[in-house]
Amino acid sequence: MPFSLTPKDNAFYGLFTASAQNLVEATTVLGEFIHDNRRRTELADRLRELEHVGDQSTHAVFRQLNSSFVTPFDREDIYSLASHLDDVMDFVEAAADLVVLTRLGTLPPEMSQQTALLQRAAETTAEAMPRLRTMRDLPDYWIEVNRIENEADKLYRRLLSRLYSGEFEALEVLRLKEVADQLEEAADAFEKVANVVESIAVKES
Amino acid sequence: MPFSLTPKDNAFYGLFTASAQNLVEATTVLGEFIHDNRRRTELADRLRELEHVGDQSTHAVFRQLNSSFVTPFDREDIYSLASHLDDVMDFVEAAADLVVLTRLGTLPPEMSQQTALLQRAAETTAEAMPRLRTMRDLPDYWIEVNRIENEADKLYRRLLSRLYSGEFEALEVLRLKEVADQLEEAADAFEKVANVVESIAVKES
Amino acid sequence: MPFSLTPKDNAFYGLFTASAQNLVEATTVLGEFIHDNRRRTELADRLRELEHVGDQSTHAVFRQLNSSFVTPFDREDIYSLASHLDDVMDFVEAAADLVVLTRLGTLPPEMSQQTALLQRAAETTAEAMPRLRTMRDLPDYWIEVNRIENEADKLYRRLLSRLYSGEFEALEVLRLKEVADQLEEAADAFEKVANVVESIAVKES
Repeated sequence: MPFSLTPKDNAFYGLFTASAQNLVEATTVLGEFIHDNRRRTELADRLRELEHVGDQSTHAVFRQLNSSFVTPFDREDIYSLASHLDDVMDFVEAAADLVVLTRLGTLPPEMSQQTALLQRAAETTAEAMPRLRTMRDLPDYWIEVNRIENEADKLYRRLLSRLYSGEFEALEVLRLKEVADQLEEAADAFEKVANVVESIAVKES
Repeated sequence: MPFSLTPKDNAFYGLFTASAQNLVEATTVLGEFIHDNRRRTELADRLRELEHVGDQSTHAVFRQLNSSFVTPFDREDIYSLASHLDDVMDFVEAAADLVVLTRLGTLPPEMSQQTALLQRAAETTAEAMPRLRTMRDLPDYWIEVNRIENEADKLYRRLLSRLYSGEFEALEVLRLKEVADQLEEAADAFEKVANVVESIAVKES
Repeated sequence: MPFSLTPKDNAFYGLFTASAQNLVEATTVLGEFIHDNRRRTELADRLRELEHVGDQSTHAVFRQLNSSFVTPFDREDIYSLASHLDDVMDFVEAAADLVVLTRLGTLPPEMSQQTALLQRAAETTAEAMPRLRTMRDLPDYWIEVNRIENEADKLYRRLLSRLYSGEFEALEVLRLKEVADQLEEAADAFEKVANVVESIAVKES
């Protein structure tokens, strides 16, 4: 395997940005999926494709890590960053798949709001990734993602409150919770990405 | 940001001790909350306040980490320690919030026992945190927390066995399990705190 | 405590191999347990014994870590490897225990298939552990475990689809999902073991 001799390998920034932009597209497709009952099969297929695209970026990071003598950050941090971005994609794809698998119909409005927050988190992340190169203006990013995750958490609890209000029967609660949990985990994974960036910044400072 | 030049920054010990003492208070309030059906709104509010207090300790650790050239342990370990202590608080607060959100009434006796174990874990942790300064007498602490987590695990399974015994209907099982899972996760997070302390001790030895 | 002066302590390879072989036996017993309705109490006891055996290997690793000046890999990686192997055992034992606790009868065929995949993952892992000594031929191992985990994921979703098909009532779905989730987590923990091995290999390369 050829080794790169560039002291600080630049390919990583592009790969992280590509992963995050893929998440912008995936969360946008998920928004349509949640909302549009009739196009679900088609949109779930699209999410599966986007997941494959994401997997390729993730593996490109790992290969790059294998072939680089020197990395711009700790190897472990690069590994975590790529893994958590990959996790977001997995949760987003799983949420859609579970809607199809458990044969859910119209979804409660809180799920559209959860997805809107995921879309906002994806955009914020995609804008921040290129800034890893200079390590400038990153606190705004992680503060915003932490704020979004906080809001997502409140929304998730509001959704649980509705699920247990008596409006739904037990099996329906179970089905809806499968999906709600994936959306909540996607928000958590965005926060983990932000935490890794924060801890990289701490070490660099 | 002003940088501290003290070779081993002492502020961390105080912040970890404060976080753990906050957990002693939170688990005590949770014990009353579980037990006293009528004061739940008031006690849930109190837990929300304690969560804010905890957040402040956690962020003080992160700020301290940012402004210290030299830290008494690996930066990653300080970060993990603060994060897992924060997680305990989040699970405790979420358990109470879910009782309110899902409109649960009298809770099964196993939940009082789960909370009593959490209180014991909090006290053990609060007593151990100041000992990080000298790294003495720490094995007793992590052995005890591991023992508590083990007991919590058995209790959790006993609770599951009761939940599925036919005593409750499906929706009630779901509601109770939401709460039981948070209590179980709080016990796990105490064990993670102890694991970080053990791994710090391994590196120092 | 006596300190070992061997530059690269060899005991670790044997301990990891022992842990993985213990998982081969545990997943085999679990296969019988899932399949043979009448021997469950006896086989659950056997799994509890195997869990104790596993705990001993895990603690032997931690003790070895305490008494070694120099370790063949980063201490954190040795710690993670031992912990994730231990997690697999815990999930396997918990799956069986939950079948007993929730009084489940005949289990859906997907659970036998989940267990067969776990057995395959255990065998692949047990064959790879001795190769950590030379760091040769390891990619085959982690690629195979990733493939197995992928298959386990698809199987888990197929099982969820069956659980929500209307074939089972809500309380039965809940019971079965408790077990299915443990089996799924066991597959994930095997993947985490493989990820640690991959990241060790990345650093060594």
